[in-house]
Amino acid sequence: MREFDLLESIYQASRTMPEHVLIGPGDDMALLDLDGRRLLVAVDQVVDGRHFDLDQMPLELVGRKAIMRSASDIAAMAGRPVASLVSVVLPPDFDAAQADVLARAMRSAASAVDCPLVGGDIAVHRAKEHPLTCSVTVLAAPVDGRCITRSGAQEGDDIYVTGVLGGAWQHNVSDHHYSFTPRINEALQLLESMGDRLHAMIDISDGLGRDASHIATQSDVRVELDAAAIPCRDGCTWIDALRDGEDYELCFTASGDVPSSLGDVPVTRIGQVKAYDPSTDDGARVVLLDHERRTPADSFGWQHES
Amino acid sequence: MREFDLLESIYQASRTMPEHVLIGPGDDMALLDLDGRRLLVAVDQVVDGRHFDLDQMPLELVGRKAIMRSASDIAAMAGRPVASLVSVVLPPDFDAAQADVLARAMRSAASAVDCPLVGGDIAVHRAKEHPLTCSVTVLAAPVDGRCITRSGAQEGDDIYVTGVLGGAWQHNVSDHHYSFTPRINEALQLLESMGDRLHAMIDISDGLGRDASHIATQSDVRVELDAAAIPCRDGCTWIDALRDGEDYELCFTASGDVPSSLGDVPVTRIGQVKAYDPSTDDGARVVLLDHERRTPADSFGWQHES
Repeated sequence: MREFDLLESIYQASRTMPEHVLIGPGDDMALLDLDGRRLLVAVDQVVDGRHFDLDQMPLELVGRKAIMRSASDIAAMAGRPVASLVSVVLPPDFDAAQADVLARAMRSAASAVDCPLVGGDIAVHRAKEHPLTCSVTVLAAPVDGRCITRSGAQEGDDIYVTGVLGGAWQHNVSDHHYSFTPRINEALQLLESMGDRLHAMIDISDGLGRDASHIATQSDVRVELDAAAIPCRDGCTWIDALRDGEDYELCFTASGDVPSSLGDVPVTRIGQVKAYDPSTDDGARVVLLDHERRTPADSFGWQHES
Repeated sequence: MREFDLLESIYQASRTMPEHVLIGPGDDMALLDLDGRRLLVAVDQVVDGRHFDLDQMPLELVGRKAIMRSASDIAAMAGRPVASLVSVVLPPDFDAAQADVLARAMRSAASAVDCPLVGGDIAVHRAKEHPLTCSVTVLAAPVDGRCITRSGAQEGDDIYVTGVLGGAWQHNVSDHHYSFTPRINEALQLLESMGDRLHAMIDISDGLGRDASHIATQSDVRVELDAAAIPCRDGCTWIDALRDGEDYELCFTASGDVPSSLGDVPVTRIGQVKAYDPSTDDGARVVLLDHERRTPADSFGWQHES
């Protein structure tokens, strides 16, 4: 079973939503209308053995990652953080000092991104082998009621990424997936400077190929990426950049001029948005152009496969 | 390690909150101020082997319980449901049909309490023995901005419960902890009919003794319960009613007249709120009066002990 397929089937079944649900399942966050006030909300989780390895990683970094991973969804929608909640399942051999380290790390990371921890739940597993699990819900407010979805890309847009990509999981390169800071401020700067010209956005967690295909599919367009333009982390190739995931950089589409950097974070144009034609490139939503070769790249990325 | 002690230590460290956090960790839900619009939010979770037993219970009921348990926190604050989110960790031997049954059960339960599922995350455990975990975040709106906390009980109040208590986990009695409906509508009726005379409220999940002590401690009062008055489920004694937990009934304190029922749900006066005096009853916050005997009953209930 693939997590992604399962989520898709759930989303399909959730198409009918009450009026106050402006964006339901399927984007980085849901958007709610609370009698005129808009609120973004999302949940994400990390599980020992899947998203981190407790044997090799200090608990502080595990707690930090759990918060930052969810906070990255706020960046993806260009929201302003409001609050967070956590639910944690601890292995029974955890002692109070360890639990405290984890709680402090989460609280501190949440404060660092202005998303204070306002609630939580703790349970203890029955058996020692059962894995530490941290689920983090984040709430955010759209600026002037507006947020950036995956589904707004338009034919003629260019497509961009922040930062550099690839190798987030390679211990010898960067351990980036523990140390990243979600691009919340950069997303707000983009929204402020570009307004309505900022059309679609996602954070890169699964890998550029797969995440760009979420934008392309949900916007019903095709994305053409230029292999030579993709900004790669030192020691990485464009294949790593497309496939590795957990970069937590922004990928967005826009029309017109785009800043070349946001503070000290570079912004790089990596391709174009075209009309979708199911008869070309085997129906691929994302196509990689490498010299003369065209490679379908929708599936370059982490597949959430069990 | 006790979950409750650990949560307390986290709450202590969270006393300082930004201005928009009107109620932080420590009540049934947190209360946020979103530029004038108030929002309640909470997270709770169920874990196989701790809160349910997957070997003995249909997946439909597990999904239902996960949602209803969190929705019961909305009742405790007298909120109106807005939306819910789930994060689930599946054992790797779960097939797509099982995952679909679980997802449908959660979606259906959420709809039944007007708390539509607007987002979620699914992960798959690394090992077959790792337990199914369902974490559920709920959002709710306070009626006219007002919600009922644990900390509002006043000397001179009477204390009440809805429904009957005890035996929620006894398969031969009721299996109530799978089949209960959270008292959301009843709480809203109470608030509407009593207004400012409804002072404090909690839902009974840990057990009446322990949950009444949460009200007493957080309100800095003492609660005296009358053993003979406690409404017990058929086959249960007042000891079961105090200790078993997972009733998901409301326990509240109020001044003046209180309805004797809410629809077909009975409301029973079970005692009084007094001033707290640390020198009597061994400093107990909850005292049970049984004929001439006075028994400290703060710790009657489920201790969340690992």
